[in-house]
Amino acid sequence: MEKNVGILAMEIYFPPTFVQQEALEAHDGASKGKYTIGLGQDCLAFCTEVEDVISMSLTVVTSLLEKYKIDPKQIGRLEVGSETVIDKSKSIKTFLMQIFEKCGNTDIEGVDSTNACYGGTAALFNCVNWVESSSWDGRYGIVVCTDSAVYAEGPARPTGGAAAIAMLIGPDAPIAFESKLRGSHMSHVYDFYKPNLASEYPVVDGKLSQTCYLFALDTCYKYFCHKYEKLEGKQFSLSDADYFVFHSPYNKLVQKSFARLLFNDFMRNASSVDDIAKEKLGPFSSLTGDESYQSRDLEKASQQVSKPLYDVKVQPTTLIPKQVGNMYTASLYAAFASLLHYKNSELAGKRVLLFSYGSGLTATLFSLRLHEGQHPFSLSNIATVMDVAGKLKSRHEFPPEKFVETMKHMEHRYGANDFVTSKDCSLLSPGTYYLTEVDSKYRRFYAKKDGKCAASENGSVVNGY
Amino acid sequence: MEKNVGILAMEIYFPPTFVQQEALEAHDGASKGKYTIGLGQDCLAFCTEVEDVISMSLTVVTSLLEKYKIDPKQIGRLEVGSETVIDKSKSIKTFLMQIFEKCGNTDIEGVDSTNACYGGTAALFNCVNWVESSSWDGRYGIVVCTDSAVYAEGPARPTGGAAAIAMLIGPDAPIAFESKLRGSHMSHVYDFYKPNLASEYPVVDGKLSQTCYLFALDTCYKYFCHKYEKLEGKQFSLSDADYFVFHSPYNKLVQKSFARLLFNDFMRNASSVDDIAKEKLGPFSSLTGDESYQSRDLEKASQQVSKPLYDVKVQPTTLIPKQVGNMYTASLYAAFASLLHYKNSELAGKRVLLFSYGSGLTATLFSLRLHEGQHPFSLSNIATVMDVAGKLKSRHEFPPEKFVETMKHMEHRYGANDFVTSKDCSLLSPGTYYLTEVDSKYRRFYAKKDGKCAASENGSVVNGY
Repeated sequence: MEKNVGILAMEIYFPPTFVQQEALEAHDGASKGKYTIGLGQDCLAFCTEVEDVISMSLTVVTSLLEKYKIDPKQIGRLEVGSETVIDKSKSIKTFLMQIFEKCGNTDIEGVDSTNACYGGTAALFNCVNWVESSSWDGRYGIVVCTDSAVYAEGPARPTGGAAAIAMLIGPDAPIAFESKLRGSHMSHVYDFYKPNLASEYPVVDGKLSQTCYLFALDTCYKYFCHKYEKLEGKQFSLSDADYFVFHSPYNKLVQKSFARLLFNDFMRNASSVDDIAKEKLGPFSSLTGDESYQSRDLEKASQQVSKPLYDVKVQPTTLIPKQVGNMYTASLYAAFASLLHYKNSELAGKRVLLFSYGSGLTATLFSLRLHEGQHPFSLSNIATVMDVAGKLKSRHEFPPEKFVETMKHMEHRYGANDFVTSKDCSLLSPGTYYLTEVDSKYRRFYAKKDGKCAASENGSVVNGY
Repeated sequence: MEKNVGILAMEIYFPPTFVQQEALEAHDGASKGKYTIGLGQDCLAFCTEVEDVISMSLTVVTSLLEKYKIDPKQIGRLEVGSETVIDKSKSIKTFLMQIFEKCGNTDIEGVDSTNACYGGTAALFNCVNWVESSSWDGRYGIVVCTDSAVYAEGPARPTGGAAAIAMLIGPDAPIAFESKLRGSHMSHVYDFYKPNLASEYPVVDGKLSQTCYLFALDTCYKYFCHKYEKLEGKQFSLSDADYFVFHSPYNKLVQKSFARLLFNDFMRNASSVDDIAKEKLGPFSSLTGDESYQSRDLEKASQQVSKPLYDVKVQPTTLIPKQVGNMYTASLYAAFASLLHYKNSELAGKRVLLFSYGSGLTATLFSLRLHEGQHPFSLSNIATVMDVAGKLKSRHEFPPEKFVETMKHMEHRYGANDFVTSKDCSLLSPGTYYLTEVDSKYRRFYAKKDGKCAASENGSVVNGY
């Protein structure tokens, strides 16, 4: 079996259009700090009418292939995780086949994986398993996470965001899976779902979803520790991993989650918990599970106790989720990309734990072991290619009024046919795909921005059949 | 790596309610034989208001576990292929977790795979790869294909159907994958898709879809033969497989498909093609690819030439698809189940080729090698458990008027909330799940029919969260 199967290369794309959470707060008449401190968010990126999950994934896959100089013929598997449904039958993967068909490569396995924000993780596991299986044919796999998170006007709206991430999968990877270290928790709940088929907006029970998230985290951690102990013959604790990356709907939940893991270590009598922590958490040791999810005092105490460790093991993972917002399937991997951005080659030899959560619900805590790797598949080159700082810097801030207006416009566009877009790609970087038209038969047409582009059509048109 | 990974056990479920194609033909004012000979179909099964893809999958998974005496704790992976979207975010897999949660097993990987009728095949490949990968934990996987195929009034309506299939996956299987023998063709086309989100009905270009299907078959066969020849050092031809199973939207296309494979063998100068066939197909050897898909004469000649071989190698796979209709993701596996039903232990040692097609499009031709296996995971026991004859016999025929009325009623129900169903499970067999209510928050509630059941509620209620 192939060794060190995992992520060889990564690319990230997020729309250049964003709104400041501070400005949105004021616009919405929310109390000061509600979005910036209460949610812990800085900015929110969103698609305008020329971008969607298909254009973003066309952009990110093309960029991945170009920047790492991968011949499209070398791809043997391509799969997508998304919960942004544009078509209920035709997968996003088939749209991406346009890139490969023109090179004569149509023998590419994989489709779309779906369950809320977890679809990308499912796709990633599937792709890694493929490389380790007898059906692997020696070529690379690509996993794409692409989502546009939009909410109806109201308290959930500031937790939106949008992005696409592409990951190249193969053996001898700098970002390798420790596949035996994995705990999942899957359950039937209605915390966040999309039963209103004509609307892009979900039905959300925010409070329930937070409890489900934390309960899933606890359960996954329990299974994970159990497997680690069976395999390694010793107890697992927070000190056995260097970084913790969480699915990040909003940063405050990430803070709570890490605090919750420390509370778990405390309850398990893990050696990692020092005396001060023990003293501060002692009063909560007799809470029932349910009580512990509701207790504000515990939340406060555990966040306080875990703060120093959070700053070291979690803080470096929070940049993109705070700047871009919730990216659903891409969210966890954008957090991981933030870590690569800050630490790149320093990460060699480190173990990173990732917690993936999708409402409904499906959740997994899993482990990666990092190595420097060899150019172009090295930690430092991945950080260079992703150019997170450059991408964040070249964005265009929209005032809240224009954001709200865009959301309203997009509501009408969702599921619609027979329209052309403005084709205005002036805010997009060269190489970015954009939507030009949806015809009367709902067929979608995209173009790629070649170079400098005004508000008129400019770019090579990618035709549907 | 584990050996002979594949399908250990199977169960199939289809609604007991059906309409005769002959009666539908007359009702629709279609010319006599249009559905029965033109499409090659006998009957069409459909869900009434108490059944849907979730209830069918609850039924089939429960039955699989019970009939093969599998402890739900022995399941480590569960995944679903479907294109019938009831919720755009919450996977069908999470609904099925109800079965496992009550046994305390929530550590079960896998979500839903989607691309038209191909999602089940993607799920199956993923599950087999999981067993062969380092992330396998020694437990079984389950793959579920569940779909309800319904069409707007018009020429596509008689190609509807409904069913769910569950397959148990593990090593040392009587139905083992030859994973190196596999050819895929994936491409961006709009032959059949579901962009109208509020409607359950697809947008279909029937003529285009048939050409896409046959072109995908040709391409997959080309890749398949190429891989076989590389691996085995000799040419592959139809004589190297004992049975051919096709995704079956309607039987006529299956006939055309097998004829097309024979035409491929003829064009490749395969040894399997005799002199009579060569003579009859000779006049078509100079057609371009495009011409060959349009030529009625070629279609007729190749079907005539392939008829004797079709009767032996394909006919035994056609029972359920002809009796139930198109089952989308379940269709290919229902065809395979038909073969097990007719031939069961005779299949030991045989090679079976399967062609999976999902519009949009994704397609794979792959190979299975069968062994008798050991009870309960034996070919003969699988046939006994599925009891295809018994299930077909105990169905209830609806007149076309009642079928049309049901379709109309279901149109209003699709995507609706805040209603209770009739809870009439009188036509369902004991052990069948049925829908009782969708509340104002779109949460769905199901019950299981215990024993004899009148038009009143009867059964243990399965609650959502």
